[in-house]
Amino acid sequence: MSQLKVGLAGLGTVGVAVVQMLERQAAEIEARTGRSVKVVAVSARSKGKDRGIDLSGVRWHDDPVALARDPDIDVFVELMGGDGDPAKAAVAAALAAGRPVVTANKALLAHHGVELAQVGEASNATLHFEAAVAGGIPIVKTLREALGGNRIERVSGILNGTCNYILTRMADEKIAFDACLADAQRLGYAEADPTFDIDGFDTAHKLALLTSLAFGTKVDADAIYVEGIRSLTLADLEAADELGFKVKLLGVAVRTEEGIEQRVHPTMVPKHWPIAQVSGVTNAVAVNGDAVNLTLVGPGAGGAATASAVVGDLIDVARGNGGFAFGLPVAALQPAQRAPMQRHEGGYYIRVAAVNKPGTAATIARRMAEEGISLESIVQRRPQRAAGVEPNDVAVILITYATTEDAVRRVMAAIEADGVIVGQPQVIRIEKD
Amino acid sequence: MSQLKVGLAGLGTVGVAVVQMLERQAAEIEARTGRSVKVVAVSARSKGKDRGIDLSGVRWHDDPVALARDPDIDVFVELMGGDGDPAKAAVAAALAAGRPVVTANKALLAHHGVELAQVGEASNATLHFEAAVAGGIPIVKTLREALGGNRIERVSGILNGTCNYILTRMADEKIAFDACLADAQRLGYAEADPTFDIDGFDTAHKLALLTSLAFGTKVDADAIYVEGIRSLTLADLEAADELGFKVKLLGVAVRTEEGIEQRVHPTMVPKHWPIAQVSGVTNAVAVNGDAVNLTLVGPGAGGAATASAVVGDLIDVARGNGGFAFGLPVAALQPAQRAPMQRHEGGYYIRVAAVNKPGTAATIARRMAEEGISLESIVQRRPQRAAGVEPNDVAVILITYATTEDAVRRVMAAIEADGVIVGQPQVIRIEKD
Repeated sequence: MSQLKVGLAGLGTVGVAVVQMLERQAAEIEARTGRSVKVVAVSARSKGKDRGIDLSGVRWHDDPVALARDPDIDVFVELMGGDGDPAKAAVAAALAAGRPVVTANKALLAHHGVELAQVGEASNATLHFEAAVAGGIPIVKTLREALGGNRIERVSGILNGTCNYILTRMADEKIAFDACLADAQRLGYAEADPTFDIDGFDTAHKLALLTSLAFGTKVDADAIYVEGIRSLTLADLEAADELGFKVKLLGVAVRTEEGIEQRVHPTMVPKHWPIAQVSGVTNAVAVNGDAVNLTLVGPGAGGAATASAVVGDLIDVARGNGGFAFGLPVAALQPAQRAPMQRHEGGYYIRVAAVNKPGTAATIARRMAEEGISLESIVQRRPQRAAGVEPNDVAVILITYATTEDAVRRVMAAIEADGVIVGQPQVIRIEKD
Repeated sequence: MSQLKVGLAGLGTVGVAVVQMLERQAAEIEARTGRSVKVVAVSARSKGKDRGIDLSGVRWHDDPVALARDPDIDVFVELMGGDGDPAKAAVAAALAAGRPVVTANKALLAHHGVELAQVGEASNATLHFEAAVAGGIPIVKTLREALGGNRIERVSGILNGTCNYILTRMADEKIAFDACLADAQRLGYAEADPTFDIDGFDTAHKLALLTSLAFGTKVDADAIYVEGIRSLTLADLEAADELGFKVKLLGVAVRTEEGIEQRVHPTMVPKHWPIAQVSGVTNAVAVNGDAVNLTLVGPGAGGAATASAVVGDLIDVARGNGGFAFGLPVAALQPAQRAPMQRHEGGYYIRVAAVNKPGTAATIARRMAEEGISLESIVQRRPQRAAGVEPNDVAVILITYATTEDAVRRVMAAIEADGVIVGQPQVIRIEKD
C-alpha cells in the first residue's frame, strides 16, 4: 500500500490538530484512499517547543521553503499564514516542483491565488484550500465540484466568527459593542488587534475566493467594497429586531448587469432566513444557483474544524481528486468585472440624529423625494443618551424601498448640508426575498 | 477534447432536466472537466412522447438494459426508479461492463446498494448517487469526501419534503393533517398513494444510505425503526410549540454502545436548532463529527435540484473522481450492528386521554415511578373534542427526562391495563442538546 508523504509547515493549533487527526483516523483514511497518509517532515518557528505530539522520526526543516522542496514529500501542507513570504515562496516552490499543496491561508490566496494556481497548472500540481474559507464547512468542494452544473447567481455568507459572536451577543443580551469585543478577546475569539476581523478584511479575503469559485472570475480582493461592524449600536440592533431583521456582517457576491458586485458590510436580513439564525462564532454560506439554493452552516474556525478541512483535502490528494484550483483553468477565468458600489440597488436602513426643531422631518422627506426614494417606514425615537444621541436631537430611523447607493449617499450629503442632522448617519443595507 | 458519452435511462422530470442542464451549461462543464459531456443514447417508456427536448441524433433503446450495455456510452445514468428490474438489471449490467453509473434511485440502493457496489468494484466501475439522498444537497459528497477525517457520531435529517410540508402547515396554520395532505397532493408534493412518504419509508431509504456513508457499515434498510407522521394531531404540535420544540419527521443514525441506532419517527427538536427552522418542502441534514458539526439545508426534490446532483456526479465521472460508492471498499464495510429500539434512550413526550375520575393522575404517576421515569412536566388540558378526546376524558401531556423506550412502553401497557386511559397514547421522542 503506497504512502502519501506529507510535509507540513506550521505547527500552531491547526497544524497540531492535523497531525493528531491523521494519526487518530489513520486506519480509516487508509481504507478510504488505499494509501497511508503520513506526516514525514515538518517546519515551524521553534524546534524545541513541546506541542503534545510525537515528532520523533519526522524530519525537521528550519526553512519552510526547503521543506516544500524536500524531494521526499508527496504533498506540501502550508499552515503558516501570512500573505507574503515565506508562505508564498514555500507554496510556489512546492507547486513548481510538481507537488500538490494544501493550504488554509486565505490572505495568501486572496492576493496571489491566481498566480499560484498558474504555477500549479504549469507543473500539473493541484492547489487545495478548503480550510481557507469558512473552516470546517466544505464550501470550496461544494462550489468547485457539487454545484458544477449550476449557474450561480449569488453567494453570501457569515464568514467571520468574531463578528458574528459580537453581533449575536449585542442583539441577544443588549451588551454594547466594546464590551462584547472585550469578551471575544478574553475568550480567544478575537485578536489583541481586532482590526482585521471587525473591519471586514478577513471576510473580504474569504469572499474573494468564493467569488472566483462561484463565478469563474479571477480572484480580486481589491474589487471588494468593505465595511466593518464598528459603527453598529444597540439602537440599530434593537430597531432591526423590531422591523423583523437580524444584522449580520455578510460577504456578498452577486451577478448583476454591471458585473460581479462584491461587498462586505453589516446587512439586515429577514429573521426567517436560515442565515439570520446562525449565532455565535458559527459560520454559514448560502449559494443561490439556477437549480439549487443551498445553505451550509458549521464551524468557521478552530483547530479541529480547520484540520478537518485540511485532512479532507489530503484525502482528495491521496485519491487523486485534483481539478483546477478555482474550478476552471486559469486561462478560462474571466477578469472580475467590478460592479461599482454606487450602483448597488436595494433597501436601506438609515438612522440619523435629527435636530429637534420644526421642519426637520419635512426636509429629510423632501430630500428623499428629490432622489426618487420611497420610504417604507419612518420611526422617530424619543431623545435618549443611550443611543449616542444628544438629548436635543431625535433619532429618526428610515427604511427605504429599493433604491441605489448613489441616491442614498446624495441624500445624506444634502441633509448634512441642510444642517438638519448631527454626527454621522448610520446606513445599513437590507437584503430581502 | 475527449467526449464523455452519456446513456440516460428514464426521461421523466429529472431526466429531461438533466438533458437541459447539460446543454445549457455545456461550455462551462467542458471548461471544468476538459471534456464535453453529452447525452448520446436514451431509453424511456414511450418513444413518441413530446418532452420539449430535442433528441434528434440521440440513439433510442427500448430496453434500458440494452442501453446500459451499449458499447458506445461511457457512463450510464439511471433515472427510472424502482427497487427491482429493469433498474437493477440495467445498473448491474453497466457496472459489470466497467461503465460508471450515476443514479438517483434510493430504493434500489437501499435494498441492493452493497451488491451493486461490489459489482462495480470487481470491474473498476464507480457508482455515484448524490441525487438519491436529499436531492440538491451534496450530502453524499460531504460525507464521502469532505468529512473523511472525522469520526461521525450522528447523522440526522429532514429527508422527505412531503412530510415537512405537512408538518410546517399544521404547525404554522393550525390546519389538520388530512387537509394538509390533500393540499400536498393537489400541489404535486405528495403522491395519490402517500404511504411511502408519510409513513416514513422514503426517509428510511435515504437514511440507510447516509448511515453507510457516515459509519462505514453495510446498507441495511431493514435495520431501521420506522414510524410516520399520520398519528400527529394539532394538539401535539401546539403542545410542542408551548414547550419550545418543533415536531419534525427525522431520520436519525447514531453511534451507541449497542451499535448503530437507525430510526425514522416524528421528533421534537428544540426550536433554536438549525434543523427546527427548516420549513416547507426543504430538506436538511445535520452531521455531528468529532471535529465538525455541519448542517446543510436545501431542496430535497424537484427536477432542477435533482438534475443538479446528477450533473455534479457526471462532472466527477468526467474528471475521473471516483472512489468507493460508500466511502470504503465493500470488504471493509462492517455489518450494521442493529441497536434495538427498546434500548433507545432519550426524553419522551407522551399524550394520553385519561379517564376523568379520581386517582387517574396518581395511577399514571405511580406507574412512571415504578419504571424509574422522572417527569419534567405534566400538563393537563381541559376536555375538548378538537384534540380527539371525548368530553369525559382529559388530555394529559407528560414530558419525561431521559429514560429508555422499553420503560415507556411498559408504562403505557400498564396504564392501559389499569383502565385509566382510553384510546392510543401518543408518544413522541425528544432530541435535545
